[in-house]
Amino acid sequence: MAIITLTTDFGEKDHFAGAVKGAIYSELPDVKIVDISHSISPFNIPEAAYIIRNAYSSFPKGTIHIIGIDSEMNEENKHIAIKLDEHYFICANNGIMSMICAEIAPEKIVEINIHDRIETSFPALDVFVKVACHIARGGTLEVIGKIIDTIKPIKNIIPFVNEDQNQIIGSVIYIDNYGNVISNIKKAFFETIQKGREFEISARNYKFKKIYSKYSDIVNFETAIEKRNDEGKSLVVFNSSNYLEIAIYKSNSQTSGSASTLMGLDLMDSISVNFITE
Amino acid sequence: MAIITLTTDFGEKDHFAGAVKGAIYSELPDVKIVDISHSISPFNIPEAAYIIRNAYSSFPKGTIHIIGIDSEMNEENKHIAIKLDEHYFICANNGIMSMICAEIAPEKIVEINIHDRIETSFPALDVFVKVACHIARGGTLEVIGKIIDTIKPIKNIIPFVNEDQNQIIGSVIYIDNYGNVISNIKKAFFETIQKGREFEISARNYKFKKIYSKYSDIVNFETAIEKRNDEGKSLVVFNSSNYLEIAIYKSNSQTSGSASTLMGLDLMDSISVNFITE
Amino acid sequence: MAIITLTTDFGEKDHFAGAVKGAIYSELPDVKIVDISHSISPFNIPEAAYIIRNAYSSFPKGTIHIIGIDSEMNEENKHIAIKLDEHYFICANNGIMSMICAEIAPEKIVEINIHDRIETSFPALDVFVKVACHIARGGTLEVIGKIIDTIKPIKNIIPFVNEDQNQIIGSVIYIDNYGNVISNIKKAFFETIQKGREFEISARNYKFKKIYSKYSDIVNFETAIEKRNDEGKSLVVFNSSNYLEIAIYKSNSQTSGSASTLMGLDLMDSISVNFITE
Repeated sequence: MAIITLTTDFGEKDHFAGAVKGAIYSELPDVKIVDISHSISPFNIPEAAYIIRNAYSSFPKGTIHIIGIDSEMNEENKHIAIKLDEHYFICANNGIMSMICAEIAPEKIVEINIHDRIETSFPALDVFVKVACHIARGGTLEVIGKIIDTIKPIKNIIPFVNEDQNQIIGSVIYIDNYGNVISNIKKAFFETIQKGREFEISARNYKFKKIYSKYSDIVNFETAIEKRNDEGKSLVVFNSSNYLEIAIYKSNSQTSGSASTLMGLDLMDSISVNFITE
Repeated sequence: MAIITLTTDFGEKDHFAGAVKGAIYSELPDVKIVDISHSISPFNIPEAAYIIRNAYSSFPKGTIHIIGIDSEMNEENKHIAIKLDEHYFICANNGIMSMICAEIAPEKIVEINIHDRIETSFPALDVFVKVACHIARGGTLEVIGKIIDTIKPIKNIIPFVNEDQNQIIGSVIYIDNYGNVISNIKKAFFETIQKGREFEISARNYKFKKIYSKYSDIVNFETAIEKRNDEGKSLVVFNSSNYLEIAIYKSNSQTSGSASTLMGLDLMDSISVNFITE
Repeated sequence: MAIITLTTDFGEKDHFAGAVKGAIYSELPDVKIVDISHSISPFNIPEAAYIIRNAYSSFPKGTIHIIGIDSEMNEENKHIAIKLDEHYFICANNGIMSMICAEIAPEKIVEINIHDRIETSFPALDVFVKVACHIARGGTLEVIGKIIDTIKPIKNIIPFVNEDQNQIIGSVIYIDNYGNVISNIKKAFFETIQKGREFEISARNYKFKKIYSKYSDIVNFETAIEKRNDEGKSLVVFNSSNYLEIAIYKSNSQTSGSASTLMGLDLMDSISVNFITE
């Protein structure tokens, strides 16, 4: 029984996600459909890239991922299907897949060419549903598209390193539900440049000299609980997806504020690391 | 294996939707439950009517749709079940079904009368769950209700056409996730009145003389990509559900603004079409 | 086929909920996963306690409930699994289960101790997924943890009653999707203290002398419909979960306002009941 996941900017209210599920069940009554997210900011490719990159690998091999962001087809925005890491991805060729593809080489990429065979009132998604059901039934990518070599890139996937190898300049690629600020600096990349050196992380005028291994490591458990003031403290961690993240301990954007709101950090802002060479 | 869909104003946070799913699985472990939307604005019948009308027909024939909006039963708000287009709908008789019923005649309508047989702490929904499971098991509507002829209407489903047949006055019935403004003027209706004539669409002080067939048709692909300024342009399309829609290309209500926020268009506002007779 | 439910503060946008579902399906392809809520306010234990308490019992016996709130493990926040009312609950020992446990004695509580056997990039949740799948396969709690006797409590579960038994002082424990204000005063508790007496309910400077049995009981159906002004009236009901609730008839926090916004009532505010002794 195949699994088809959905990652879109349709929002939680409109009928689009429901209609897509209905269309899939109409073709394949026994498939499992899993929502990854329908709350990507409208047309926000980097957000979608971050979310699908961090969700897909928890699913079983063979899972089919539909990504419905900015997917109206036109001469500059073709539809593609990619086989990579034994998963299938169906989306527009608008950069969404470039974060995953920067880490793992695709096995196969096709530009979908079945559009003239489909009767539809929702072109982008009906095409994706047809392709997903084709794959779920065991069909190959060559049947629904022609093989291509490369996909459209997005900027800011990989941070910049200076020539002396003592500075990384990264940028904010995602703000999560807790208002934590996530950079494009990955743990393995950081450690390769670090080579064991001390460092200072800067974001606006905030400085950090330590990376915690989990959020609650900032708590001093020897202080009596009623005397603690850890909630609201800022810290840096490598998050569960191994990205360097600036966080506020137990933050809440709606009430006490978060790393993003309190420190004024937003998408695309710079986060730099200076390594101290003696 | 039956499918039961849920369309409600319960929101994403409260326990109501979860409890309803648990109640359904307690009766029918093998049914499929699909969320259409739980984010209808509270008590907003026209929004619910628009969403269920555009979602239901993607599902397989025989699907059972529970609509939980304004469903507390009282002497003026009875519960009904409708068979229409080989789908089943269970809701309060408050106008929600009148948009679908204006297009397709119901096969059968019953006023549900099993309330005294149900022990419940959540009356409206427990009744709907019982009826849905009864239908999913192959039961008929006559067993759970008495046949009635008509349902309660809602206003503003059909736009007004003047006597000379050269003006349509419609109204805004939905604002979607992208902030696009959707009218009650459907494509087939528009074309019947249009008879090939030129036209001018007016909404507040904005005028449009063209209806695009897709959003990106507003882009001039011959302009170099770095010189384009199409994002943020307003346009009119017939949307994927064939309603006349005023849109902003790649809009985002939270950041750059949307058709609704930038043009000040809201639910119930007028949208008129004047046909030019030579 | 087991059911696993999810109640978290992950929000609707991030990849966390999708990743957890993928991890569960990777272990158990045939399990059913049901979202109860992912929109708990970040780190809000009382909200989570209220939601899981009101959702769980609609599910079939044997259902496994994962609660992912404030679940990073540290020396003061251990992971537990509880069997209670023939349901299973997996969460951090942070008070979430104390509302349910105050009503129904747990059959068994274990402190989970399998952390060293798990390879993970998302420790709290990966542990919960492993435990849930273990239980779904028929495993016992003793295999994944050591038995403990008590769990951490939260405050404000039970309202205060004065010595003369003529006053209940409760507090607001939840604001629902309609902005209705829900107290910790349950119907059975109220009636035990009331002993048939008249009463006055106070919240800020608002007073109520009646508890309605449903919302629309505030409507006077004998008034012609166009002359009614019931929408926007405040009233007190016992809600579908039997908690005393201050509501506004057909409220909408976004537009006309709700009990919470119009009356200025928020979490932790007092709601008192004075019984009139003659």
